[in-house]
Amino acid sequence: MQLKNDFNTVRKRSMHICAPLKTEDYVVQPVVDVSPPKWHLGHTTWFFETFLLKPHFPGYKEFDPNYNFVFNSYYETVGARVIRTDRGNLSRPAVEDIMRYREHVDKAMQSFLDTALSDEIRALIVLGLNHEEQHQELLYTDIKYILGHNPLMPAYSDTAVTSYTAPATEQPFLQMPAGLYEIGYKGDGFCFDNELGRHTVYLQDYQISTRLVSNAEYLEFMEAGGYSDFRHWHAEGWDWVKREQVKAPLYWHFVDGQWQHYTWQGLQPVAGDDPLCHISYYEATAYASWKGMRLPTEFEWEAAAPKLSWGQRWEWTESAYLPYPGFTKAPGAIGEYNGKFMVSQMVLRGGSEVTPPNHSRLTYRNFFHPSLRWQFTGIRLAK
Amino acid sequence: MQLKNDFNTVRKRSMHICAPLKTEDYVVQPVVDVSPPKWHLGHTTWFFETFLLKPHFPGYKEFDPNYNFVFNSYYETVGARVIRTDRGNLSRPAVEDIMRYREHVDKAMQSFLDTALSDEIRALIVLGLNHEEQHQELLYTDIKYILGHNPLMPAYSDTAVTSYTAPATEQPFLQMPAGLYEIGYKGDGFCFDNELGRHTVYLQDYQISTRLVSNAEYLEFMEAGGYSDFRHWHAEGWDWVKREQVKAPLYWHFVDGQWQHYTWQGLQPVAGDDPLCHISYYEATAYASWKGMRLPTEFEWEAAAPKLSWGQRWEWTESAYLPYPGFTKAPGAIGEYNGKFMVSQMVLRGGSEVTPPNHSRLTYRNFFHPSLRWQFTGIRLAK
Amino acid sequence: MQLKNDFNTVRKRSMHICAPLKTEDYVVQPVVDVSPPKWHLGHTTWFFETFLLKPHFPGYKEFDPNYNFVFNSYYETVGARVIRTDRGNLSRPAVEDIMRYREHVDKAMQSFLDTALSDEIRALIVLGLNHEEQHQELLYTDIKYILGHNPLMPAYSDTAVTSYTAPATEQPFLQMPAGLYEIGYKGDGFCFDNELGRHTVYLQDYQISTRLVSNAEYLEFMEAGGYSDFRHWHAEGWDWVKREQVKAPLYWHFVDGQWQHYTWQGLQPVAGDDPLCHISYYEATAYASWKGMRLPTEFEWEAAAPKLSWGQRWEWTESAYLPYPGFTKAPGAIGEYNGKFMVSQMVLRGGSEVTPPNHSRLTYRNFFHPSLRWQFTGIRLAK
Amino acid sequence: MQLKNDFNTVRKRSMHICAPLKTEDYVVQPVVDVSPPKWHLGHTTWFFETFLLKPHFPGYKEFDPNYNFVFNSYYETVGARVIRTDRGNLSRPAVEDIMRYREHVDKAMQSFLDTALSDEIRALIVLGLNHEEQHQELLYTDIKYILGHNPLMPAYSDTAVTSYTAPATEQPFLQMPAGLYEIGYKGDGFCFDNELGRHTVYLQDYQISTRLVSNAEYLEFMEAGGYSDFRHWHAEGWDWVKREQVKAPLYWHFVDGQWQHYTWQGLQPVAGDDPLCHISYYEATAYASWKGMRLPTEFEWEAAAPKLSWGQRWEWTESAYLPYPGFTKAPGAIGEYNGKFMVSQMVLRGGSEVTPPNHSRLTYRNFFHPSLRWQFTGIRLAK
Repeated sequence: MQLKNDFNTVRKRSMHICAPLKTEDYVVQPVVDVSPPKWHLGHTTWFFETFLLKPHFPGYKEFDPNYNFVFNSYYETVGARVIRTDRGNLSRPAVEDIMRYREHVDKAMQSFLDTALSDEIRALIVLGLNHEEQHQELLYTDIKYILGHNPLMPAYSDTAVTSYTAPATEQPFLQMPAGLYEIGYKGDGFCFDNELGRHTVYLQDYQISTRLVSNAEYLEFMEAGGYSDFRHWHAEGWDWVKREQVKAPLYWHFVDGQWQHYTWQGLQPVAGDDPLCHISYYEATAYASWKGMRLPTEFEWEAAAPKLSWGQRWEWTESAYLPYPGFTKAPGAIGEYNGKFMVSQMVLRGGSEVTPPNHSRLTYRNFFHPSLRWQFTGIRLAK
Repeated sequence: MQLKNDFNTVRKRSMHICAPLKTEDYVVQPVVDVSPPKWHLGHTTWFFETFLLKPHFPGYKEFDPNYNFVFNSYYETVGARVIRTDRGNLSRPAVEDIMRYREHVDKAMQSFLDTALSDEIRALIVLGLNHEEQHQELLYTDIKYILGHNPLMPAYSDTAVTSYTAPATEQPFLQMPAGLYEIGYKGDGFCFDNELGRHTVYLQDYQISTRLVSNAEYLEFMEAGGYSDFRHWHAEGWDWVKREQVKAPLYWHFVDGQWQHYTWQGLQPVAGDDPLCHISYYEATAYASWKGMRLPTEFEWEAAAPKLSWGQRWEWTESAYLPYPGFTKAPGAIGEYNGKFMVSQMVLRGGSEVTPPNHSRLTYRNFFHPSLRWQFTGIRLAK
Repeated sequence: MQLKNDFNTVRKRSMHICAPLKTEDYVVQPVVDVSPPKWHLGHTTWFFETFLLKPHFPGYKEFDPNYNFVFNSYYETVGARVIRTDRGNLSRPAVEDIMRYREHVDKAMQSFLDTALSDEIRALIVLGLNHEEQHQELLYTDIKYILGHNPLMPAYSDTAVTSYTAPATEQPFLQMPAGLYEIGYKGDGFCFDNELGRHTVYLQDYQISTRLVSNAEYLEFMEAGGYSDFRHWHAEGWDWVKREQVKAPLYWHFVDGQWQHYTWQGLQPVAGDDPLCHISYYEATAYASWKGMRLPTEFEWEAAAPKLSWGQRWEWTESAYLPYPGFTKAPGAIGEYNGKFMVSQMVLRGGSEVTPPNHSRLTYRNFFHPSLRWQFTGIRLAK
Repeated sequence: MQLKNDFNTVRKRSMHICAPLKTEDYVVQPVVDVSPPKWHLGHTTWFFETFLLKPHFPGYKEFDPNYNFVFNSYYETVGARVIRTDRGNLSRPAVEDIMRYREHVDKAMQSFLDTALSDEIRALIVLGLNHEEQHQELLYTDIKYILGHNPLMPAYSDTAVTSYTAPATEQPFLQMPAGLYEIGYKGDGFCFDNELGRHTVYLQDYQISTRLVSNAEYLEFMEAGGYSDFRHWHAEGWDWVKREQVKAPLYWHFVDGQWQHYTWQGLQPVAGDDPLCHISYYEATAYASWKGMRLPTEFEWEAAAPKLSWGQRWEWTESAYLPYPGFTKAPGAIGEYNGKFMVSQMVLRGGSEVTPPNHSRLTYRNFFHPSLRWQFTGIRLAK
C-alpha cells in the first residue's frame, strides 16, 4: 500500500511541476545540459516500462516500440538512442502523446503494484521513484533555464515563492575536532549505490560555516573585482571566465543601475540576504580564495551536517566524485546509474529549494561538472 | 480591391499550409537553415508591421515591442535580433500569441488597404506578399525537414499528393542557336530587384534537355559508384561527401532491400519516373559530369525556358549569383533584400511543387549555397 | 635547349627565393592556407618525379617512396597524402633532405631533357615549370605570412624593394563601348586549361579605371567608418568582419599614432601613394560600394586590359570562377589541376609584384576564396 | 658549490637530451599538449632570467625584451604571452638564438651563484632546477611525439635502450592493513608545494600489486574486446574511445600481422614482458574494471610505496588532483606553480624511464587530464 501511495504521489508531482507550462515550453532545449520537459516526462515513464513492466509484468503491452529510441537517456545496455543534443529537435511524440504514455504506464503499474512483488522488484520500483524525483529537480532547473533565457522572460508562476531565513549578520563557524568519522549510508531506507560502502575517514580539525554565503556577500567579491583577478581562479576557471565573459552568477542582469535576476516571478531585484545561487565550482572556489578560506570536503560536510541547517542550495565541495572503498556496479543497465560518471565531476552536498521533499539525506552525493550552474548551487565556507 | 484580395489570399495560404501541424511542430529548428514554422508566421507579419503599418499608418498600435527583436531576420538596419541558431530555443511567443499577432496586423492592414495608397506603398505591400510567398515555400521545405528527420517519420497529410507526368523514355534535347539574347525582367508586373537590369548576352550554340533527370536515372549514377568516384566532384564537393558521408539524396533510406524516401505521406518507395529531388549543387554537377554533360547557365536556361516545361523542381544552374549590369540596391532596409547575398551562392531557376502559384516566372533568380538540399532541387542537363 | 634552359632557370629561382631564410623558417605553417617553404620545394620536385621521371624515364630510381605521401598536394588520383593542416607538423624530411631530393631530380631531368621528347612530354614539362612558378608566388606570400606573423617581425631582406609609380591624382576612367568581345587564350604558347575555350561575350558599355586604388584612398574609406557600416558589405563579408574583428588590411598595425604595415624590410609606415594590398574580396566590394562603383567582371577586365597597365596586384573581379564554354578536364591526375576548384571562388586578374616574370598574361585566371588576403591583392574600380 | 654544480649539471642535461635532434625537430608542435623543443629550452632559461637575474642580480642585462612574450608559459602575473597553440608557428627566435640566450643566462648565473645568496634565493634556484627537470621529461615525451607522428618514423637514437626487468609470471599482491598513515613530504630536501601539509589519513585494508601491468596482459584485454565493451568504461571515456577511434595504446600500430610500436629506435615489435606504456586514465580504469580490480588511490600508493619497486612508468591513481589540508599558494608568480591546476586532473605517482635521476620521490604528485597519454604512463592494480 505504501509503495502504491508513494508511486502515485511521485508521479502526480511531475505533472504538477509542469502544470504552468504552455505546450511550446515542453519542446525546446536551449543548451545541451537542459532537456525538454516533455522528454523528462517520457523518460521517467520509460524507466518503469523498460525495467519493470516489460521484463516483469506478463501480458504488458508496450505503448510504442519507437519510444525506447526516443526516451533512453544514456543506458548503452538498452540500445540506440536519440543523441542528447537532438532532444530539442523532436516535435513528436507530441505532449498529448506523452500524457497518454504516462497514463498507459501508470495504469499498468497500478495492476502490477497489486500483485505480490519480490523484494528485488520493490527495490527497483523505489529506485524508479527516486530516479523520477531526480528528474523533478531537473524539470525545475530546466524550466527555469528555458523561460529565463527567453527574451520575453515570462514568469513561471505568481505564487511559487520560496522564503529564506535571513542569516545572522556575523558568520559563526562550527569547530570540528580531528579524528575518525564514519562516512556513507547506514540504515534500511533507500539510498543510491554511490553512498554505500560506509567507511572510516580521518579528518584534521577544521571549521565549517553554519550558513551559506549570501547575495550581498558575493556582491562584495564582484565589486572588489573578483571576476577580473586571475589569482583567485583555477587556470581552467579563468579560461572559462574569459571565454564565456562571465561577470555575475547565472540569471543576473544589471538593469536600471541595479543587479536583478530572473526568478520564478520574472525579473526581480537581487535580495542581499538571500543565499547566493547559480554559481559554478570555479566561482565557488574563487570566492572562497578571495575570503582566505576554502570549501569543505564532502567528508567534512557529512561529519558536520547533523549540526548544520542545509537544504536551500546544493553546496559545492572540494571533493571530486570518486568511488567509495568497495564500490561495485550492479550488473546490467541499472549498473550504469552512477559509476560511469565518476571522473571529471565535483561532489555537491545538501539539497535545494527544488529538491523533492525527503529526497535528499546526509549521505546523498550529487555531482556536476565544475562549469555548470543552472542547478540551484551555493557556497558554504570552511577553513 | 485586387490588392486587398491578394493580401487576404496570400495571408490565408500561410495558415492553410500550417493547418496539419501540431503545436509542437511549430517550435523546433533541427538545423540552422530550417526555421520553426511559428517563426515564419511571425516574421512575415512583422514585415507588414515594420515596413507598412508603423511608418505609414497613423494611429497604428504596435502589438508588442519585443517582437521586433524576435522576428527580425537579417535586416541590420532595423536593429538587434535573435541569432539564427537560437530560433528553435524560443518557446515564447507561443503559437496562439503569434496567431493573435497575425490577426492584429491583418485587421490593421484591412483598414490601411481601404485608405488611398501611393504607388510606392502599394509596391511595398506587393513586395511583402511576394516575401510571404517565399516564406510559404520555406514553410513547406522546413516542415518536411522537421517531420522527415523525426525518428517517427509522421505524415504531413494523407491527401497532399503531387502527380508527375512521366517523361518520355528518350531524352530529347532542344538545340539553341548561338547569338544575342535579352536577359532580365521586362514588363509591368512585380519582380525582385535582382531580375532588373535587362541586358544583352551572347550565347554560344548549346543543347538543353527538355525534361528533368528522373530518380531512375540518378539511381544508375549511384549504382555505378558515383558517390565514391572523386573524378566527378568538385574538390569542395568531394570533401562534403566524405565529411557528411553522403550516399544518396536527402530523405532517401535503404530499407528492406530497396530505396525509399520520406514524402508528405511518410516513408514510400522511390518512384523511378518521378523527377529527382533534394540534391545539392555538388551532386548535380557530379551527375552531369558522369553523363559527360553539364548544367546550363542561368542565361541559357532563360533563353530556352519558353520552349521548356518547368516548375516541378528548382533547377541548379552553372551560374554563380552575381549582380546584373546596373544592379543597385534600394535605400534603407528594403535594399538588404537581395544584393547582400551575392557571393558564394549558385543560381537556381524554374520553380518547384511547393512554389506558390504564379510566384515564379521566366526571369526569377533563386539562389542557395551549393551544399544545401532541403529545397525541392533537381537537375536539367545541357551540353 | 630552350626547354632545358627554362627548366634550370625556373628551378634555380625557387632556391633563390628561399636563400634569405633560416632553416626554421622552412618548417612552420601558421595557418592552413600557408604551406611550409620546404613543402613547396619538395612538392614542385615531386611533380617532375611523379608525372615525368617515374612514368616516362626508364631506369629512373625513385628518391624515397615515402615522399609521395608527404608531397602530394591534392591529387586524389595519385594516392593518400598528408592532410593539409598537418604540413607544419612535419620536421622530417629535413631541409637538407629536400635539397638532396631536388638535386637528385634535377640531375635526372638533365638527362631526360637530353633525350628525344614527344610534344606531349614537352608540354608536361612546361606545365611543371608553370606549376613551379605558381608555387614561387606562393613561396613569397607564405614567407611573408610566416615572418609577418612572428612577434619579432624579422625582415626578409634589406634589398628587396619594389618601387611603385605614383598614380596621377585624378582617376581617369577608360570608356569601353558595348559590343562583342573575344575572351580566352589564343596562340601557341603555354596556357592553363581554364583559359581555353576562346569564346564571344557581349559586354554593355562600361568604364574601367586606368589605375589601382591607393593606400591613401583606402584610408579614406577606413576613416569614414567603412569597417563598421554594414550597408557596404555582403552578409557573408559582414559576418567575417565581425567574427575576425577586421579593422584594416592584412599586415597593417596602428603603432605610435600612425598606420604601419609589415613589409619585406619589417614594419614600415604605410605609403599613401602605393597601391593598396592584401585585402579580401569582401573588402574590395565594400570599398567599391562606398565609392558608388563596382569591380569589373573578368570579361570587362580582359577586354580593356591591353589599354591598361597592370601587374602590381592581383585584381579582384566580380566574376565567380566557372568553366568557359566547352571546358573539359584532361584525363588522369593532370585533369585535377583547375576544374575541381570551380565553385565558391572569385576570379582575380592581372599579376602581382611577386608573380614570376612572364608568368601571367591577358587571359590568366587566378582564383581564391573571397575571404583570403595573404596574396598580393588589390582593387581596380569600374562603373 | 653544490648548488653551482647542480645548476651546471641540470642545464647541460637539457642540451644532452636535444643533441640527436635536427634543427627542424626543434620547431614543430603537432598537438597542443606538445611544445617545440626549442620552446622548452627557451622557457626554462626565461625562468632563471625572470625570477632570479632580473629582480635579484643588479646590473644584469636582459637578453631580449621580446623573449618574455615568447617564453612565458602560463604565468598571468608576468604579462602577456604567445598562446599555447601558436608555439609551433614561430620560426624565430631561431635555435641558434636560443642557444645564445642559454649561454647568456648561464654565464650571468655563474657570476650570480658566486655571490652570497640568501636562503630564499637559493630555494628559488632549486625550484628553477626542478622546473627544468620537469621540462626535461617533457622534452623526452614531446620529442617522442614529434618523431613518432612523422610518417617517416625516424629513430631518436641507436643507443638509448631502456631495459626492463621481466616481472614474475604470477602477480603477487602486497597486503596492507587498515589504519592511520602519514601522507605528504617530510624532510629538509626540495619538494613542490603540493606535497606539503603532511597529514593523517585512514585507509581501509587493501591489496596492491607489486608490479606493473605488462604489454602481454593488456593485449589479453584488447583481444577480449576491451575497446568495444562500454561496460568497463566511464561515460566520458567511452565517448573518447568512439570519438578518437581508439583501439590500442598510443604509438601502437598493427603491421604485418603483429602489434608494433614506435620506440626510440623506430618501429619495433611490442615486447610482451615490458611494462605497458602510453595509456590514458580511461584505459587504465577500463583495464582494471575488466580484471575485476581497481587502481590504488594516491594515499594507498604512498603508504605502500616503500615496499614496492617503481619508476618505470607514471602510475595512474584513482585520486583527483586536489589540495592537501592546509595547502596555500606562495605569493606572486611562483604561487601559480601548482594550485591553479587543482581541478579536472588525476594524480599519477612514481616516475618513468625519462624522469630525471633523483627527481621523483615517494610523495611526488604528478597530474594530467584523464585523456592524455603521451607521457610514459602505466597501470598498477589494487583491490
